[in-house]
Amino acid sequence: MSRQALGWRMDYDTLDHAIRIAPKAKAPLKGRDPLCEHLFPDKQEAEEALRADAKAIDAMQDVLWAERKRALLVVLQGIDTSGKDGTVRGVFNSCGPLGVAVTAFGKPSEEELSHDYLWRVHKAVPKRGMIGVFNRSHYEDVLVVKVRGLAPAAEVERRYEQINAFEKHLTENGVTVLKFMLHISKDEQRKRLQERLDDPKKHWKFNPGDLEDRALWDDYVAAYDTMLERCSTAHAPWRVTPADKKWRRNAIISAVVRRTLEEMNPAYPKAEFDPKAITIE
Amino acid sequence: MSRQALGWRMDYDTLDHAIRIAPKAKAPLKGRDPLCEHLFPDKQEAEEALRADAKAIDAMQDVLWAERKRALLVVLQGIDTSGKDGTVRGVFNSCGPLGVAVTAFGKPSEEELSHDYLWRVHKAVPKRGMIGVFNRSHYEDVLVVKVRGLAPAAEVERRYEQINAFEKHLTENGVTVLKFMLHISKDEQRKRLQERLDDPKKHWKFNPGDLEDRALWDDYVAAYDTMLERCSTAHAPWRVTPADKKWRRNAIISAVVRRTLEEMNPAYPKAEFDPKAITIE
Repeated sequence: MSRQALGWRMDYDTLDHAIRIAPKAKAPLKGRDPLCEHLFPDKQEAEEALRADAKAIDAMQDVLWAERKRALLVVLQGIDTSGKDGTVRGVFNSCGPLGVAVTAFGKPSEEELSHDYLWRVHKAVPKRGMIGVFNRSHYEDVLVVKVRGLAPAAEVERRYEQINAFEKHLTENGVTVLKFMLHISKDEQRKRLQERLDDPKKHWKFNPGDLEDRALWDDYVAAYDTMLERCSTAHAPWRVTPADKKWRRNAIISAVVRRTLEEMNPAYPKAEFDPKAITIE
Repeated sequence: MSRQALGWRMDYDTLDHAIRIAPKAKAPLKGRDPLCEHLFPDKQEAEEALRADAKAIDAMQDVLWAERKRALLVVLQGIDTSGKDGTVRGVFNSCGPLGVAVTAFGKPSEEELSHDYLWRVHKAVPKRGMIGVFNRSHYEDVLVVKVRGLAPAAEVERRYEQINAFEKHLTENGVTVLKFMLHISKDEQRKRLQERLDDPKKHWKFNPGDLEDRALWDDYVAAYDTMLERCSTAHAPWRVTPADKKWRRNAIISAVVRRTLEEMNPAYPKAEFDPKAITIE
């Protein structure tokens, strides 16, 4: 694809190389820049790229639906305030609700807990023709569950390979899996939490429990590091997305989603009838 | 609300009066104009009104979600090509997939058929805070099921009151129900079906079975007439929306959805904590 088609100045490989975690690579979050100014130096350009990408994504989603053979699953993970909802709005709003289904995974229900942890996740996998977005995901089962000790350590330990096998199953069955870890600094989180306290219209977003998780920051970073090392596979790599700037985060993710759909290259199906032989009374 | 706030020249009551079916009124489709040029005479104005309404709907949906006490269910019914998908795109695309969940009801699965006909419908009712859109609905169970004789006539006959009771249950439990019947002429359907045959990119939308339904046009009209007479209730009235012009259809429906949300008047919840007493470390 030409640079022009992508709608921005940097070539795609440079971008992807900067954020994709190679299989089995140790890629500690501590050494990763949550800003990455070199990726999209200019805000206005990033916003233009996002608009162009969002439009292209919408157009390709239509064909994906017409084809009805494959699906795209976009997994968004990140700590509180890292911008998971904002990414959905920024990247997928042009698609509208018809071709994109968002599933938010909160605290599991009694029924969900009475099944294995992938049960509720599998149910929410997008059907053929759709783009599914997971706001949090099965990775919570090796993140919050690990940090807060909600399952025995030995059980959590087995999950990394189980998750890899599950995602391999999906990709072998026509579901392309994209995984974005939204990477923000501890300082940026403080700012965003403070905004929620300062603006009465944002009070509902503030959960005093978020501060407990913030106090466990280093434990979460360690859990994310292990997840990135163990679950970034060739078939479903993790991409650590600098997310301190919302506009840059959106431009990066939309570029990857667009490129992925272009590579999937969906096509309108051929008619199983002869359109010329049909007369409408 | 002022005319200005609605973003168009006609007042809302005139519009609503023109399309809403009074309880138990006989309102045969045959006597209803699928164009209704007087409602939005000017295309450009209608498009401006739609844009303003879509933006207002998006903003109010955010508050509805923050409040998380009530839901809005929008039912779209109409024969093939009447524009159900197009309405979702036109009216709800600004909302994005985060706050709007679309459910398309096709031919029921084996599992669905092993339950009563409202089982799959109840499951898809939007949760508190969401707008749900039904592309087709439980009304198929008194339309295609009746016309094609897929259930005994006596059973279909009982369904009108069952549906009224079900919708009453929903409205009494915080789900506002809006029902739009998209009304197109037989001639307009011919044009739209022909477009699907002429454009290879639309072949996938054409189903030769649609012609069988078209041949049963008068039977469908009769089934719709009965549905409108029996199921337009005070708590969940039917609105017969002129749909020969897509832009007018969208402007009308967005005006009703906007007004409905304004009347629901969602509010940001009060914080259950003292924002000033919280310090973020």
